[in-house]
Formats: sequence, structure tokens, C-alpha cells
Amino acid sequence: MSTSAAPVSLAVPALFEPRQEDYAAFAALFAQSCRIGATAAGGLHRLAASVDDGRARTMLCDWLRQHAFEVRVDPVGNIFGLMTFDPAAPYVLCGSHLDSQPSAGRFDGSYGVIAAAVAIAALARHAAETGVPPACNFCVVNWTNEEGARFQPSLTGSSVFVGAMPLPQALALRDAAGVTLGAALEEIGFAGAHPVAIPVAAYAEIHVEQGPTLERRRAAIGVVRETWAASKWRVRFDGEQNHTGPTPMAQRRDALLAAAHAIVQVRAEADRHGLEMHSSVGRLDIYPNSPNIVPAQATLLIELRSRDVALLGEAGERLAATLQRIADMTGTQCVVEDRQLREPGKLDAALCDLALDTGLRLRLATENSVTISGHDAINLSRAYPSCLLFVPSRNGVSHNEAEFTSDEDMHRGLRFLTAFLSRLGKETPRHTGNDHGN
Amino acid sequence: MSTSAAPVSLAVPALFEPRQEDYAAFAALFAQSCRIGATAAGGLHRLAASVDDGRARTMLCDWLRQHAFEVRVDPVGNIFGLMTFDPAAPYVLCGSHLDSQPSAGRFDGSYGVIAAAVAIAALARHAAETGVPPACNFCVVNWTNEEGARFQPSLTGSSVFVGAMPLPQALALRDAAGVTLGAALEEIGFAGAHPVAIPVAAYAEIHVEQGPTLERRRAAIGVVRETWAASKWRVRFDGEQNHTGPTPMAQRRDALLAAAHAIVQVRAEADRHGLEMHSSVGRLDIYPNSPNIVPAQATLLIELRSRDVALLGEAGERLAATLQRIADMTGTQCVVEDRQLREPGKLDAALCDLALDTGLRLRLATENSVTISGHDAINLSRAYPSCLLFVPSRNGVSHNEAEFTSDEDMHRGLRFLTAFLSRLGKETPRHTGNDHGN
Repeated sequence: MSTSAAPVSLAVPALFEPRQEDYAAFAALFAQSCRIGATAAGGLHRLAASVDDGRARTMLCDWLRQHAFEVRVDPVGNIFGLMTFDPAAPYVLCGSHLDSQPSAGRFDGSYGVIAAAVAIAALARHAAETGVPPACNFCVVNWTNEEGARFQPSLTGSSVFVGAMPLPQALALRDAAGVTLGAALEEIGFAGAHPVAIPVAAYAEIHVEQGPTLERRRAAIGVVRETWAASKWRVRFDGEQNHTGPTPMAQRRDALLAAAHAIVQVRAEADRHGLEMHSSVGRLDIYPNSPNIVPAQATLLIELRSRDVALLGEAGERLAATLQRIADMTGTQCVVEDRQLREPGKLDAALCDLALDTGLRLRLATENSVTISGHDAINLSRAYPSCLLFVPSRNGVSHNEAEFTSDEDMHRGLRFLTAFLSRLGKETPRHTGNDHGN
Repeated sequence: MSTSAAPVSLAVPALFEPRQEDYAAFAALFAQSCRIGATAAGGLHRLAASVDDGRARTMLCDWLRQHAFEVRVDPVGNIFGLMTFDPAAPYVLCGSHLDSQPSAGRFDGSYGVIAAAVAIAALARHAAETGVPPACNFCVVNWTNEEGARFQPSLTGSSVFVGAMPLPQALALRDAAGVTLGAALEEIGFAGAHPVAIPVAAYAEIHVEQGPTLERRRAAIGVVRETWAASKWRVRFDGEQNHTGPTPMAQRRDALLAAAHAIVQVRAEADRHGLEMHSSVGRLDIYPNSPNIVPAQATLLIELRSRDVALLGEAGERLAATLQRIADMTGTQCVVEDRQLREPGKLDAALCDLALDTGLRLRLATENSVTISGHDAINLSRAYPSCLLFVPSRNGVSHNEAEFTSDEDMHRGLRFLTAFLSRLGKETPRHTGNDHGN
């Protein structure tokens, strides 16, 4: 890994850092967040646009307003907390998401939103105290339905913001009970009337790593340079509903048996490629899913992830042929209902360099990193200079109630983010802007 | 197949048969039943103790009362329509079930209840007209939750009636939403206060075959001599909830992957035994079943069916070892939560002989038959002389909206059942009774 950071020098002025009261404000707001949708096992269950998501959003908006942010909500429910110093200047956006997976962890997403709010509030206080405003404005963001647990696909709010998904399509997404995202947002009072159109200088997001690397390497901050590509498939097998008793085995067209073969083969495909590919089937819906009925229909959500798009392409061709063979073997029909490639992303090199330099100047163990999971920052990076920053996750466990990041690691992340945003406030507008110039 | 029927002889008196008005009454009541829980594709969706099941039950009770039956409901919701000629005599029970599988057929169960009601009403009318009552009483029965689609296990009402399942256990069964059978029966007004204790001389049930044999052999009536055994397992794999993206493949403990291997192996086990074994996994519950989460838990309902209990035992031992190997391979834990053997059943030989003779005397193509599926008659046969009678199913399709039995076949069945019950009314009490003497 190469670092393009400037050498640490005593001649460099000290970076802006949070005060004790900022850490206290962070701890209080984070604790408040942890209580909304808390599970008995210490985790969080706060699905997008659910009642608990609504409560967490209200908590955030209240806090932002109390700290002099202007709060706006766009039609897909993204929340923007604007801290405007110069109406003519662009905004540095910083945020993440308050929604969670089912019975998941307290840190994923929430950490990044709350750290952003506290860091920007600290910058605003400093500007008021010194009478020296930053050269750009700041904006805290909470993106809608990052997780994609209740509504698929994931990253909905940021996709709409960058124009990758039309708003009507996003609002028409349905959960398993048939409720649309639009209706769910109306229900919790977070369907805004108008898009939030602000000039974006840059986007920064801090997040728990969801992998074991930083912890193993005893690093405090990871600067994500790139993300893996993902190929996401929705595949349906249609069989024939019949009695599990008398129906002759040779006559059965069992959609669940076909799905089982598919799940085994998806894993086998990843195993061909060692560390170069991840795969999963996280969701399988079966109809009628009744003990005495040969299943008539099974729908799988398949993922293949790799850094290498060509490898994903090859694997996808082989998988398509395998699915057809499975259908032939089981007497079912196989329909690939959806197949989408999420391209690999490169985060902004200049922002990554500045982040790495900031970490080193703060004497935090800071390293280049890579992400395999999707993040709103990857969406933003397709339109604006963006960076994604990691703090450690214990044992790399995530999307699990046992997900854990220590207070010390969260504080190091807040200290880093505050200093980094402060530097962006001084340096970004000079060479970046809405024209994606760097 | 051996038949012990008496040779057809012109010297034998004609059997009692339904009149045109009975066929009309059957058609009207069956049509009414088909409308309750009807699906758009011409099927039936009438889960046990649902609102629609309640409506079908009310329809039956109204009809029975209009035709001078005394209606009683026991605490597990079984409906008894008593036609009592001699309070000192035992009862011949005849019935089936009004509940259905999800999006299933109109004939399964309903045919047998309605045919029984119409046949017994015809016998009662004949007794009133001739002034010659049968030597025994009759009783139409609708058994609760035969299908086991909403509440597991199946055959609940008949199991309680014969003492194979304690009433509190039956009432405490829960559906997927957590509703107990007891509460659901209260809700639809079919939780009786007292057991219905009547002396049982015999039980007869007529049902659609749910297999292709009668149709292929152009037979009208099947007399079931025996039923296959079934081994039913509930198996849970416990894995670890994690992110489908960054979690290293080697670290994953994917409960759905384990379940998929198990489903494939359950089928492979059946395939070892050719026509001697049927197998299925009809139901699989996954948690959290979210696209970006490695599944933490998967619970399968596995069935193995065979005529040969020893074969089921061997297959079960091999399957248990296979499940453990799958758990080891996938890093999951495997728990066999439940494993029950449903013993093979022999129907009552004397009743079967009488049924076969009746069919032959009516000049209906009547054959010995075998059933692979569970039926309330099998439960009853463990306590009382019982028989199970089949009419053809087109293409053997069942538990499917396309399930079909022609009006002609249903009429032949009603004609047969009426004559058969009439003979039982003359002959049964002499040599059978509550002492299971034959």
C-alpha cells in the first residue's frame, strides 16, 4: 500500500479536534440511538421506514435543530442537516444511515450519522467562537433504506440522490407485506415535498469496517480506496404444487429442491475462486411452504462479489447454465427475474490522500482499506468526490447483534472525522466542486 | 390383489341407492362449499380454523340441522352430525374434513364430508318412509385441521378423538403468526365445551385418490387396504448471522447453505429406494431471510414415506449421519427438534371386504387400493373398525388448484357410499361395536 501523505512535521499547524463536550454529546446521542429499536441481546432491529426508524429520524432532526442546523427532507426520505456559512459556497456532505438489518448491530450506519452531526456541530461552534467560518458549508445526511432489508434494492436514498434510480421507482418498492416505500415514509412523516438541491463539493462517510482487517492490524482508521463489484440476481423456479405423499417421485416438479441445488452451486462457484470471490443466497421465498405440499415456487436472491468484473462475468455465465441444468433435472422452469451488476468503485484519490494524511498527523494508525459491502459512499462517488472511512469492528462481525466497536475506537473515529472535515472546510472548495474536477 | 367378495348373483336383493334429489342436494351443497375460500384459478384456500373454514363449517351445520341431524362440536372443533334411530345402538361415523391446503383443490376432504351428509340424510329419509330404521345410528363428521397446513401436525381433530393427542396439546398448537388452534377455534365459534362421547361401531371415509391409479385403470372406487408409514422430522440448522459482503467465505456459518445440502440429500435418500420410498421437504423457514445477511437459522420439515418401516429406519439412520456431516462441513449446528414415525396402517379387513362386495354388486369397477398420504381414517383405524374409499383424481394431481374429479365420478362415489352405509346399517352392529371385535 502506498501513502501519498506529506511527512509529519512539527511545522504543520495542529489540526482542529473535538472537545470533551463533543465526545460527551456523541456518547449521549449514540446511547439514545441505541435505545430505539433495541433488541434484548443488545442489538438493533430498525428496518427502513418502520416506526422505530421514524423515531430515530425524529431524534436526529431534533438534535440537528437544537444545534442550529437547517433540516430538510427530500421525497425519498433522505434527511439533510444543513450548516450554511456562505450561501454561495458548496457543501461538504457527511453522513450514513439510521436503518438497520433485522436483529443487527448498533453501530452499522448510526455511528456515521451521529459522528457527522457532532463533528459538524463542533466546526460550527469553532467558527462562531473564532469568527472564522470555513470556506464551504457542511451538511449531515441520513440516507433512506441503505440496508435493503425491508425494501430491495439497498442504497435507495443515495441512488435517488445521485440520479441512479428514478424517484417513482424508489417510492414504488414494496416490502414483503406489499407496503410501498412511499406509503411507509408517509406513515412515519418523512416523505418530503421537494428534492434537496444543493451544490456538493464532496461526500465523506465514516462507518464500522464489518471485517476483521483493521482490528487484526491494530489500526484505528481505514481509508477505503476501492470497493468490490457485486452481481445481484433474483431467480425464480416454478414447479408444480402437489401432495408430498402419493405423488410419484418421478412426477414431481419441486421448486424448493431446484432452489436447494442452486444454493449449493452458488457456493461452489465462489469456492472455485478462493479469496477472489464471495457469494451468498441470503433470502429464499417459498410458496406455499406447507409441510404436505411439494413447493410450487421458490425465489432466490443470489449475490456474487469480486474485485474483478471479468471474473464475475465468467462466473455469471457458468451460473446461468447451471441454473438451466438444475431446472431441466428437476422438471422446473427457471426464470432470471433480475440481474444487476454493481460496478466496482474507486473512491476519490485526493480525498483519500487527505484522509490518510489527517490520520497520520493525528498519530492515529491509519491504513488504506478496501470494502466488499455496498455503501452509500460508493453511490455518491459516482457523482461527487467521495471518501469512505472505517473504524474497527471486533472480530469483523456485522449484521449481527454481537457487532461491536469500542468507545475508544469510536472516539478515535470522531476525532479523525472532525479534523478531516475541518481540513476539507479549508482545502476542498479550492480544488473540488460540483464539477467533479479532481 | 385378492377379493373376498361374494359372486354377483341375481338372487341378492338390490342395494339401497340415492334418488335424483339426493344427487341434486349433493351438487348444491358441493357448489356452495366450492364458493367458500374459492381462488381465482378455480381452487380452494381454506386453512383450518380460518374465517373461511368457519363459514364452511356453518354451512355444514345449517344443512345438517335442516336435515334433522343433531349437531355437536367437541373442544377441538370436530363437528358431529348425529342421526339417531336407537339411543342404545352404536354409531357408524362417516366423514372427512372441510379444511384445505393453501391454494389447493375443491375436492380433497370436502367431497367426503358432503357425500357422507347426503348419504346419511338419504338413509334417514328411507327409514322414515319405510318405517324400518337401521340397526345402528349414523354420524357425519368434519375433523379439524386434517391438512396440517396452518397448524402442525396434521390430523389434529381425529388424533384427539382417538386419544392419540391430548386435547391441551392440540389447542396449544400455533400457526406461523403465533395464534393457537384453541384461540382460532374460539374466534370462529367452533370450540365446543364438551367431548362428544358416542359408541363407535365403525368409521368410513370417502376421499379423492390423490394419485393416478384409479384413473389409469378406469376404476370407479378404490378400497384402501393399507397405508404407508411416514417418518416426519423437524430439523434446525443454527449458523451465524453476518454480512454477505465482507465476511470471509471461510468464516461463514450459513444455515441456509446447510439446509440446501440437506434438501438435496433427502431427495437422494429417496432416490436410493426407487418406488419404495417417497420424500419431501415441503417447508423451510429461514431467519432473518434478508438479502445482505448470511442466514442464521433454517428449519426444515422433512418427510420420508414407505410401506416398509425397516427401510424408513435405515434411511433415517443414514439421514441423521448425513445431517451431521452437513453441519460439520458448513460450520453450523444441527438439531433434530422432532422426529416422529407414523406407523403403517391396515384398514379393517371385514369392512374392506364389504366395501368391495358393495362396489361389485353395484357393477362399479372397484379395486383394492393403497394410500401413501395420511388420512383421518388411518387415525380412526387405530381405535375402531375403519375403511377408506377412493374415487379417481384426474392425473393424480392434488394439493393443487388443478385437482379435479368429474361429477360422474363423484356421483358414482355417492351412490357407492350410500349403498355401503345402508349395508353397514344392517350388518355392522351384529359383529362390530365399541369393542373393536372384528
